[in-house]
Amino acid sequence: MKVKVSRKAHFNAAHRLYRPDWDDKTNTRVFGKCNNPLFHGHNYELIVSVTGPIDPQTGFVMDMKDLKDLIRAEVEDAFDHKNLNEQVPEFRNLNPTAENIAVVIWNKLRPHLKEDLELEVQLFETPRNFVTYTGS
Amino acid sequence: MKVKVSRKAHFNAAHRLYRPDWDDKTNTRVFGKCNNPLFHGHNYELIVSVTGPIDPQTGFVMDMKDLKDLIRAEVEDAFDHKNLNEQVPEFRNLNPTAENIAVVIWNKLRPHLKEDLELEVQLFETPRNFVTYTGS
Amino acid sequence: MKVKVSRKAHFNAAHRLYRPDWDDKTNTRVFGKCNNPLFHGHNYELIVSVTGPIDPQTGFVMDMKDLKDLIRAEVEDAFDHKNLNEQVPEFRNLNPTAENIAVVIWNKLRPHLKEDLELEVQLFETPRNFVTYTGS
Amino acid sequence: MKVKVSRKAHFNAAHRLYRPDWDDKTNTRVFGKCNNPLFHGHNYELIVSVTGPIDPQTGFVMDMKDLKDLIRAEVEDAFDHKNLNEQVPEFRNLNPTAENIAVVIWNKLRPHLKEDLELEVQLFETPRNFVTYTGS
Amino acid sequence: MKVKVSRKAHFNAAHRLYRPDWDDKTNTRVFGKCNNPLFHGHNYELIVSVTGPIDPQTGFVMDMKDLKDLIRAEVEDAFDHKNLNEQVPEFRNLNPTAENIAVVIWNKLRPHLKEDLELEVQLFETPRNFVTYTGS
Amino acid sequence: MKVKVSRKAHFNAAHRLYRPDWDDKTNTRVFGKCNNPLFHGHNYELIVSVTGPIDPQTGFVMDMKDLKDLIRAEVEDAFDHKNLNEQVPEFRNLNPTAENIAVVIWNKLRPHLKEDLELEVQLFETPRNFVTYTGS
Repeated sequence: MKVKVSRKAHFNAAHRLYRPDWDDKTNTRVFGKCNNPLFHGHNYELIVSVTGPIDPQTGFVMDMKDLKDLIRAEVEDAFDHKNLNEQVPEFRNLNPTAENIAVVIWNKLRPHLKEDLELEVQLFETPRNFVTYTGS
Repeated sequence: MKVKVSRKAHFNAAHRLYRPDWDDKTNTRVFGKCNNPLFHGHNYELIVSVTGPIDPQTGFVMDMKDLKDLIRAEVEDAFDHKNLNEQVPEFRNLNPTAENIAVVIWNKLRPHLKEDLELEVQLFETPRNFVTYTGS
Repeated sequence: MKVKVSRKAHFNAAHRLYRPDWDDKTNTRVFGKCNNPLFHGHNYELIVSVTGPIDPQTGFVMDMKDLKDLIRAEVEDAFDHKNLNEQVPEFRNLNPTAENIAVVIWNKLRPHLKEDLELEVQLFETPRNFVTYTGS
Repeated sequence: MKVKVSRKAHFNAAHRLYRPDWDDKTNTRVFGKCNNPLFHGHNYELIVSVTGPIDPQTGFVMDMKDLKDLIRAEVEDAFDHKNLNEQVPEFRNLNPTAENIAVVIWNKLRPHLKEDLELEVQLFETPRNFVTYTGS
Repeated sequence: MKVKVSRKAHFNAAHRLYRPDWDDKTNTRVFGKCNNPLFHGHNYELIVSVTGPIDPQTGFVMDMKDLKDLIRAEVEDAFDHKNLNEQVPEFRNLNPTAENIAVVIWNKLRPHLKEDLELEVQLFETPRNFVTYTGS
Repeated sequence: MKVKVSRKAHFNAAHRLYRPDWDDKTNTRVFGKCNNPLFHGHNYELIVSVTGPIDPQTGFVMDMKDLKDLIRAEVEDAFDHKNLNEQVPEFRNLNPTAENIAVVIWNKLRPHLKEDLELEVQLFETPRNFVTYTGS
């Protein structure tokens, strides 16, 4: 009997989509205005979900406050008000698309969760564009 | 060929997180301000989803009006404007965490649905905290 | 390692729920006020999700702009500001319930996507009623 | 010391923008695809606000339940699941633009409110288009 | 040249609508299920708006961080996870309707703002019921 | 008899809050992490409202499509996916706070509207922070 518990968080950041090993023309053709060399930015809305059995002692799958604190420490403190390309080490050599950001967040959170819990990361880049990653 | 149909509903209620068999200090350590002995409360937003084949006669998986009426009878009439701990029998001996409330709602709705339909209950305790239960 | 990418879109349309082979009394009993012979309408909110591996070249599962353009061509241009029963060929002999509209949209989009991508269609008929179809 | 109390409601309806005294070409030039002769439709979201002093006996400007019932009787029962042009008398000779619908709703509600209360009607035709009318 | 700056906040609380000087029958007739003697509760969403000239040095009407901290100190810390009737002194002799809560919040915030700034408080008791108070 | 018509739009941009004539220490003290020299960014949600009489010919205060096109030409094309500080001339010597951005947008739109129409600009920097400017 498993329940999924979800917690919303958010951070604001600047980014640029491009590959340093491609020329400008190719970057612009593939990434369009997202390739602006002076960056643009987003209010990223994040939903982190953890699935597991309910602890019969507490009635919790996981204390939502612990999940909130974990997201703050691993994601918000690391990404908020940052330039993802320039100031977040994970994107030094990785294009910060919504897909890649979701995978990076998943990889940062996974080691801090008990092994029997499943993890899902959903990231809204805009209210109309979002991605979901479950680790497989 | 199965489709999931979902219906939103809501109810307001007071609750308190605690275990009567624990002392105050333990309850406060585990449940923090949610252990306020004079209760606090929430606007619970509920999404009930039913998955099954489309009836070729009607084009419905299930008449959304029937689902709405079922939610009203089983959940809203039972929980709305109530003190969950004191006035809802299911929580007399069960801590009304979001996880446990979702499981209780699922158990109340399941017997009223045709056997070949799958049921999912999603419960928002706040706009930032929510849980999902599918019965397994 | 698969990621689901989702794109929101919307269209406004008129429709009526009824079966031409049923008499008025039966249509009204089954479909209630949705059987108004002069139609009613909705702002349909649509979420189309595509799941697949991240292209290591671009960091995209699928270029969100391509997905947006596909939804515009196949769904918005075909359904927006239309009378679904009278002006959209797929519903000439199919009751335009939310369930059936979601299946029709799925069938229109599927041929345009690469075979290894999974497709999910979620359609909000109102903010409180919505359906999800994954093709199986 | 006045407070504004607001209540949300909603209705779904079909409509068409056109003037019967204009030819087709003019109607299409002015109203574009909103002039579809077979209608389209919307989920109209309505916010009705009433401003006045707080009754020191109850702590209410106006009982929100009374306001809810008034909106149901005067607006939802009259407009919901209707074809505004064909089935709502107020639009027999009045183009059902969002502006005109808001004014009609205001005029329907005003006589039912105490004279010293101010009335505001806000109508969302889509999540992106909305109008506000205060009666002056 | 004045600009209004607005900040959203929220708190969860239990409350009960009733007058101790009225008998049960009258309280129930006037306040309905909101008069539950064991309380119910809400997720209150709060929007605090401050209007004034833009400081040409900073480009701010008021530092949004200061406004956020003020709301936390005066409102969230005082009301969150509390029983408004029993644990918030302002409601010891005042019925905690949405109208009265908004006025109390306005009165708590006003002394902390510079005199030339105008203050508006908007309080959502549920997503469908909300009130607005501007101090006059 | 005036009605306010409102249209939502949005743009994504990078920005940085700072004054070039202040030293780093002062900029950081006043603007905190918003002073990141490598920028951060937002999904700006914009609501433009125009108030005036209803044209008895059309039933419109202003054709919403014209308003949408005006916002696209003057705001979205100019600001979307841009670095406000570096690539938008109006902010070359003006700190791009939400307040200042709203005033700039108002000034860009005003000359394109008929003189008897009133204009209001509301700008959401995040879902929790927003500003409103009416030109006076």
